[in-house]
Amino acid sequence: MTGYLKGRLRREDIITAAIEAYRETGYHGSSLREVAKRAGITHAGLLYYFPTKEALLAAVLERRDAEDAEREKLDIPPGMELLRHLIALAEYNVAHRGIVEVYARLAAEAVAPDHPAHEYFIRHYQIARDSAVATFTALAESGELRDGVDPHAAAVAFIGMEDGLQVQWLTTPDEVDLVGSMRFFLRNLLTVPLD
Amino acid sequence: MTGYLKGRLRREDIITAAIEAYRETGYHGSSLREVAKRAGITHAGLLYYFPTKEALLAAVLERRDAEDAEREKLDIPPGMELLRHLIALAEYNVAHRGIVEVYARLAAEAVAPDHPAHEYFIRHYQIARDSAVATFTALAESGELRDGVDPHAAAVAFIGMEDGLQVQWLTTPDEVDLVGSMRFFLRNLLTVPLD
Repeated sequence: MTGYLKGRLRREDIITAAIEAYRETGYHGSSLREVAKRAGITHAGLLYYFPTKEALLAAVLERRDAEDAEREKLDIPPGMELLRHLIALAEYNVAHRGIVEVYARLAAEAVAPDHPAHEYFIRHYQIARDSAVATFTALAESGELRDGVDPHAAAVAFIGMEDGLQVQWLTTPDEVDLVGSMRFFLRNLLTVPLD
Repeated sequence: MTGYLKGRLRREDIITAAIEAYRETGYHGSSLREVAKRAGITHAGLLYYFPTKEALLAAVLERRDAEDAEREKLDIPPGMELLRHLIALAEYNVAHRGIVEVYARLAAEAVAPDHPAHEYFIRHYQIARDSAVATFTALAESGELRDGVDPHAAAVAFIGMEDGLQVQWLTTPDEVDLVGSMRFFLRNLLTVPLD
């Protein structure tokens, strides 16, 4: 293995350890020293890759975006096909509880304007809303959205419901059908079957 | 002022300081020492009232429940009147951002089964779901719920949407009409006007 490749792998190991630490104690509750220990590396060794807590957080969020882009296949045009893709993504998340936990924790922490992930989540919500508005607008134009349903209101409520269901599901998994609830919400807005 | 009354007030001051600390750095990110400093009391003085972090958290959650019970006027029977009350409660919350921030942070932290507020949030969701199921069931019986809408699915989705909208609103307040989104959701399920 080349030194470069070893460095890449070491970097990825640290990011994985950081995700685990955020999941358990949040961003504020975890230290670089503790992440280093989890990754089996010295504190000084970790600082070579990530000189600050903020730099490590940025790398965690970048990995999440890369994974999402891969799964969301962002080239899907707005409309029914995109809704089906979001449902498939939710099915994936239900099978990967850790991803949902990290995201829910960071999103709630980052509502504070001075949190280093605050700008990230502002962009995240903006992108998610724009995409959902485009989809509900396309559905309205094709007659697949019920009369009188406002695409922007539908987008804000849909994203809200997705996020809130995650926390409710993480807390009481046996009583919340996360994917079924998304389908329920969409069925009430559409004039055509979802499948 | 009697010693007893002074003690009560001191206790309430500590709880207020703890809410502020949880809001800023979460439960895991705040120490009893720091809460004592905020409350203008010595660390030893605080330990007299709250010997552990868990005891202080329990007091914060108890205060929230007491405030909610006061505002939610829990004697309202399930049905339209309760929905209007939940909307009024959301209007109150929008005017009191701090309350929403603490709740959203703690709910996300407490998804971990070993978090001291975990059992609290399991009960919280159970009570909220039972109340919402009873309301949507009453509406179905009175013909105010659209045909084919399942009361349990509506309850889970409604609570999810309320919670998720809070985080989205806290992050991007200018772009999220929290109360409007709740009305939007309900309008799509009801056969009668909400007001």
